[in-house]
Amino acid sequence: MPLSTQPFVDANKARLLDELLEFLRIPSVSTNPEHKPDVRRAAEFVAAALRNAKLENVEVIETSGHPLVYADWLHAPGKPTVLCYGHYDVQPPDPLDEWVTPPFEPTIRNGNIYARGATDDKGQVYMHIKAVESLFATHGTLPLNVKFLIEGEEECGGEAISDYLPKNISKLKADVALVSDTELYAEGMPTLCVGLRGLIYTEIEARGPMRDLHSGVYGGAAPNAIFGLVELLGKLKDADGHIKIPGIYDDVTPPTPEEKHSWALLPFDEEEYRKTEVGSTVLTGEPGFSVMERTWARPTLEVHGIVGGYMSPGAKTVIPAKATAKVSIRLVPAQQPEKIVAAYKQFVADNTPRGITTEVRVLSASAANSVNPDHPAIHCAAEAFAEVLGRETVFTRGGGSIPIVGDFKTHLGIPTILMGFSNPDDGLHSPNEKYPVANYYAGIVTIAHFFEKYGR
Amino acid sequence: MPLSTQPFVDANKARLLDELLEFLRIPSVSTNPEHKPDVRRAAEFVAAALRNAKLENVEVIETSGHPLVYADWLHAPGKPTVLCYGHYDVQPPDPLDEWVTPPFEPTIRNGNIYARGATDDKGQVYMHIKAVESLFATHGTLPLNVKFLIEGEEECGGEAISDYLPKNISKLKADVALVSDTELYAEGMPTLCVGLRGLIYTEIEARGPMRDLHSGVYGGAAPNAIFGLVELLGKLKDADGHIKIPGIYDDVTPPTPEEKHSWALLPFDEEEYRKTEVGSTVLTGEPGFSVMERTWARPTLEVHGIVGGYMSPGAKTVIPAKATAKVSIRLVPAQQPEKIVAAYKQFVADNTPRGITTEVRVLSASAANSVNPDHPAIHCAAEAFAEVLGRETVFTRGGGSIPIVGDFKTHLGIPTILMGFSNPDDGLHSPNEKYPVANYYAGIVTIAHFFEKYGR
Repeated sequence: MPLSTQPFVDANKARLLDELLEFLRIPSVSTNPEHKPDVRRAAEFVAAALRNAKLENVEVIETSGHPLVYADWLHAPGKPTVLCYGHYDVQPPDPLDEWVTPPFEPTIRNGNIYARGATDDKGQVYMHIKAVESLFATHGTLPLNVKFLIEGEEECGGEAISDYLPKNISKLKADVALVSDTELYAEGMPTLCVGLRGLIYTEIEARGPMRDLHSGVYGGAAPNAIFGLVELLGKLKDADGHIKIPGIYDDVTPPTPEEKHSWALLPFDEEEYRKTEVGSTVLTGEPGFSVMERTWARPTLEVHGIVGGYMSPGAKTVIPAKATAKVSIRLVPAQQPEKIVAAYKQFVADNTPRGITTEVRVLSASAANSVNPDHPAIHCAAEAFAEVLGRETVFTRGGGSIPIVGDFKTHLGIPTILMGFSNPDDGLHSPNEKYPVANYYAGIVTIAHFFEKYGR
Repeated sequence: MPLSTQPFVDANKARLLDELLEFLRIPSVSTNPEHKPDVRRAAEFVAAALRNAKLENVEVIETSGHPLVYADWLHAPGKPTVLCYGHYDVQPPDPLDEWVTPPFEPTIRNGNIYARGATDDKGQVYMHIKAVESLFATHGTLPLNVKFLIEGEEECGGEAISDYLPKNISKLKADVALVSDTELYAEGMPTLCVGLRGLIYTEIEARGPMRDLHSGVYGGAAPNAIFGLVELLGKLKDADGHIKIPGIYDDVTPPTPEEKHSWALLPFDEEEYRKTEVGSTVLTGEPGFSVMERTWARPTLEVHGIVGGYMSPGAKTVIPAKATAKVSIRLVPAQQPEKIVAAYKQFVADNTPRGITTEVRVLSASAANSVNPDHPAIHCAAEAFAEVLGRETVFTRGGGSIPIVGDFKTHLGIPTILMGFSNPDDGLHSPNEKYPVANYYAGIVTIAHFFEKYGR
């Protein structure tokens, strides 16, 4: 089957790229209140792009947080409907001093676009819009019905889309959702992700003395909030990375033997991964599990940030009154977030050292998701992917979390095609995040091709 | 013996207070490079005050860091010489938002001067100068010889005074040093401190992956710099506060039975101390030792600050590349700093978790000090103190460190009288540091009285 939109993409390369760079210049950091106007600007940019792509009923929907953007085109009766989801907000760019070029001044180097959001998710959500535009330009119509729902709170755990979804079921009803927020297993290798981990994100605040105290005068008698927090956090995992919260592994469903077998066949050089992706002296994690099992099919616990006491240059001899850490747990299929949150809170209470008081704040909690690989849309997506990239499509899981996939399942009863085009080294969430220009163009053609196959 | 300078102090109360408030308005935070000009301004202020007090040979001495201020008056042949030491620099005022009134806008409330440096050490060093001024005003001369050496690096572990001391032994030679940087054991209780702990101050930096990584993608395979640091720090002490560095207790000299007996007689309400001074749910520290033993005569280890990863509002799911903590160890008599530093570094190396690399930076290291309570100057000081305050003088130790006391012993061969006038709740190093106005006036009279006794 020919790639009908390839000529259009080839003829419009410069414009398609310029538009994306303009999108990337908007610092739509949803987690930081200072960027609220920028987040709105990004929503308006998306709405304008949807209108330009000839989509109808374009709406910027107000919410209690950042706006949602909706659009549709429903003039293919008897054909399936695809709900295209993405997000126009981005992670904070910290640490700023590690960026080679500024995060919101997109720069092309070696065929890559360097910018915060280049791959997660602006570069990918924009492919969906351009796929529709290219189909209209090529055929004057679309091969199936489409709906777009694009949010601005994916990176800040906002509630807007989860609130909106159950109240707008008939408006959003579709046969399948399409999300491009995952990566190719290897450069040039078509990849569909059929499982995602869930996420519980929390803050733990520890308090010791009522104020910062002089460590000479009170050292030996007063509890230290940092040391108390450190003692507590240190007990959450053993040296092998096993999480020590009682019952946390009880409901873990292991991957099927077929899945484990297929993962073992994926090209993977553990030493290369360690050196070029992780860059640590050794890899860590639970013994007896492969890297894929550890990152895709095992729960993990991480501390993302910690702060307390005096950290300016030089020496200050305080016993700090307060210290705080951000801690998350990744969940795998069958683990129930409510049950794990309760066990985690109990563990913190049981292991808070003497003289310290702790408070746990749960910022978000979502279950893991898996998708049935036998769905017809998955088959069409796999074929389209393979035909564009010229290699067989592989099925993987992802270690990260896309809570919306669970919401689509729960409220709309539909599976989600996770069809992402990032390269593994694109550095999402890191300084110098990038997205290859070639993947952007190939993504547009592939998504259009998938729509044509699925519409047939 | 009458208090000869009391009439002068009574007649000049307003001016003596105004001058101190002017001194406190200078934000001479030595550890912060931004305040370098303020630190110099404080040095010039001290030099002017010494001149006004009729001291001679006043010098602002340039160093590689902040200036030293010197002055003397040596026209009492056959009489002893007292070297008055103090510091005009102050601790950083953080956390700023906990101050009721701004740290560098001194405010009088309930008979207290609230300001950073009010008690540590501007308020106290200024008493020395005013004691000399009051003796000159009362008698037209001094009862003994005095030298002043006042530094601006006490709070930042600077090297200027330690470099200067061994090169200027004949210039600084004296019979005894006088330092007012300690506190009254209880309000109104004359107190001489005859022992101080030493201090090793360090930073530990931990590194894991080469850059911040997405915790969904890499969680389970990549080491986490914060978790690595937390694991390491958690091993430094057990739940009872015992330091687990091998050999750290080997050279600890316990207090004499007489000392322990006299400490047990000091008025001390442990529950009141917990509630009003520490403000924690319980007191902590090694079982089997009293609070005085734990804070005066046992080595302790504290974490003063920790930082790593993402700590702005909201959620960011990074595996952080780097985390840093400030860690100190307090030493007691007979512990050798070099030996403890080596054991500490070895412990960090031995306990650094897999996948993590650590670096230890030693910012300063000084031994503990003790003073012979039978020295004649100690007797005169104890008498003067008792006569001004109308109660018997008690002998205590301090948990904090005044490294200069060790330097005076080593280079000048002289003991130091630690005669401080702070109240125990003055909150040195904390927000809302204060100094009672009454203690300031009483300190001037007491020091003058001590000079008269010791000069007889």
